[in-house]
Amino acid sequence: MGKITTLLLSASDVNLLMQNYGIDRLMDDLIFRLIKEFENFNTTDTVIPIRSGFNYSTEHVGLIEWMPVYKKGEEVVIKVVGYHPNNPDKFNLPTILSTISCYDTKTGHLKGLADGVLLTALRTGAASAVASKYLAHPQSSTLGLIGCGAQSITQLHAISRLFPIKKVLIYDIDIEAVKSFDNRISLLGLDIEILPTEIVDILSESDIVCTETSVNVGEGPLFTEYKNKPHLHINAIGSDFPGKIELPLALLKESFVCPDFIEQAKKEGECQQLTDDEIDSDLYTVIQNYHKFNHLKDELTVFDSTGWALEDQVVMDLFLDLANEFKIGKEVSLENISSDVKNPYHFLYHSVIV
Amino acid sequence: MGKITTLLLSASDVNLLMQNYGIDRLMDDLIFRLIKEFENFNTTDTVIPIRSGFNYSTEHVGLIEWMPVYKKGEEVVIKVVGYHPNNPDKFNLPTILSTISCYDTKTGHLKGLADGVLLTALRTGAASAVASKYLAHPQSSTLGLIGCGAQSITQLHAISRLFPIKKVLIYDIDIEAVKSFDNRISLLGLDIEILPTEIVDILSESDIVCTETSVNVGEGPLFTEYKNKPHLHINAIGSDFPGKIELPLALLKESFVCPDFIEQAKKEGECQQLTDDEIDSDLYTVIQNYHKFNHLKDELTVFDSTGWALEDQVVMDLFLDLANEFKIGKEVSLENISSDVKNPYHFLYHSVIV
Repeated sequence: MGKITTLLLSASDVNLLMQNYGIDRLMDDLIFRLIKEFENFNTTDTVIPIRSGFNYSTEHVGLIEWMPVYKKGEEVVIKVVGYHPNNPDKFNLPTILSTISCYDTKTGHLKGLADGVLLTALRTGAASAVASKYLAHPQSSTLGLIGCGAQSITQLHAISRLFPIKKVLIYDIDIEAVKSFDNRISLLGLDIEILPTEIVDILSESDIVCTETSVNVGEGPLFTEYKNKPHLHINAIGSDFPGKIELPLALLKESFVCPDFIEQAKKEGECQQLTDDEIDSDLYTVIQNYHKFNHLKDELTVFDSTGWALEDQVVMDLFLDLANEFKIGKEVSLENISSDVKNPYHFLYHSVIV
Repeated sequence: MGKITTLLLSASDVNLLMQNYGIDRLMDDLIFRLIKEFENFNTTDTVIPIRSGFNYSTEHVGLIEWMPVYKKGEEVVIKVVGYHPNNPDKFNLPTILSTISCYDTKTGHLKGLADGVLLTALRTGAASAVASKYLAHPQSSTLGLIGCGAQSITQLHAISRLFPIKKVLIYDIDIEAVKSFDNRISLLGLDIEILPTEIVDILSESDIVCTETSVNVGEGPLFTEYKNKPHLHINAIGSDFPGKIELPLALLKESFVCPDFIEQAKKEGECQQLTDDEIDSDLYTVIQNYHKFNHLKDELTVFDSTGWALEDQVVMDLFLDLANEFKIGKEVSLENISSDVKNPYHFLYHSVIV
């Protein structure tokens, strides 16, 4: 029997890869690969079911779900992600815990397994940057961030790679998150002004806004009154669960609404609030027909980002490629490859004979 | 932030555990735990969706599927299993490659990850032994094995732990598999007579029969004519895919048919051939009401074993427990636990400051 190994990328491996490669270069590569993937996406070669999972409102409220994607003749990538909002307070752990697995469709072999926490934050930022590239005003220089947690860092990072951001208007219900924001983004090395701002002013002054809050089910939207710049583009990140919404219906109805994955967004995203004919085009359709949608850069647009398995595949492939290039990670023999394919107890013989 | 680790049980770890603990003791524990789990199973505390996956008939024919199970307030176990029938010939790899993951539902943390190849073979054997305990004649001494591949070893092993097996009648379309069978089971240390036998005679002479073939979709059943002992119990293992069947409809109609998981068996098992009213009771119902079903031990019965996620959870828990007891396996920090929950790039600060 052949010996096959799984490339394991631990938390410290993915961190080391980012340090070695450089976070800007890595984000640029990720955005580039994501655009290529959206440009070439079709439902014949790539199959993406709506994610499913278990959610529970027991003592420890939470959700564990799996997000599979199948790229014909190449690989299956499955991200398993846990969302447990009480983790920080109760267990000193992040809300999102995740790992990503990549399987070879020739044999079913698990080729790689990696941390999905950092990779999810990266690909969510990159997806917003891509949506903004096609929907936001090209001279966007003021970015609004509603919610200043972990996701806001990668949103800012990714968007700053494509736009000449000069001013960042920030808001969070947690004043500590607002206070620590400067310090948290200092290593991005951006030449920007950061201003704590009320939501109503963020909407009227920003060219691009990202919403990435942990608003509870049934407690949205985050605001009701607003007066926006005519060309405002919003990346709505936080809505990713039935009943969880961030934006008011009136704003959505005024906007060109572009979900990452229509069927999923209707179940879990801002699109829950809309009828089918109020939802415009998904992101890959916009990208594949960008000339038709160019006028949107002067209008009000919303990217309804629920998190798409295709993005997980792209970021996983990037890290596996980098790991091979930098020889980072650990090869382990996880699957039992018997020396005799017809004998699951083969190892007993070895231990006797050898 | 707290540090959390994932217990990794590689192929050699699970093999070492079996050697250290002893294969008979391990199989006995597995059968015992499986019975307890079936006795206590209810759909309120344990949620098991039908498995789903990607199957493809491209250049490399195959299937990758995920089998999740949620035990309320405790854990989620997900087995990912690949079935690629050309693996042995083309890649010198087993047909089934698999890993099993176990998540803590308090936090979503990946507690453990283990080889699923050996564990699947073990739990499939154990499930047949459990079904036989409740459906086969207690004095069963002749076991028929139709199909002599990897699964036949664990079927024999498990069933021999509960029944006084003296004679094993074996059949395989691959004559090499028949020839090598004696040698492959020698380490089980059984005092049995092994006789290559035609299918028709296996059915008329055996008390218990296991079918575990790789019959192709559309090419079943394995036989049409038969004359069985009045109290024959059959464990039908091989049928686990739409269109794949091993047993003739006439035999099923004569039998008490007991699937592991009715909804799945109707899609992938022998039950594909039956109408709803021709399917009798699932295994846990039989076990929970064993007094009502005791008469079946003198009749013709079929266990339609498609592979149930509950069995994966039981075998995974057993191995995680043993790994902790024997201090076998490797703890890895897979998920990125930031020292600052609000900063996914935390590691950059460490590398500068430290």
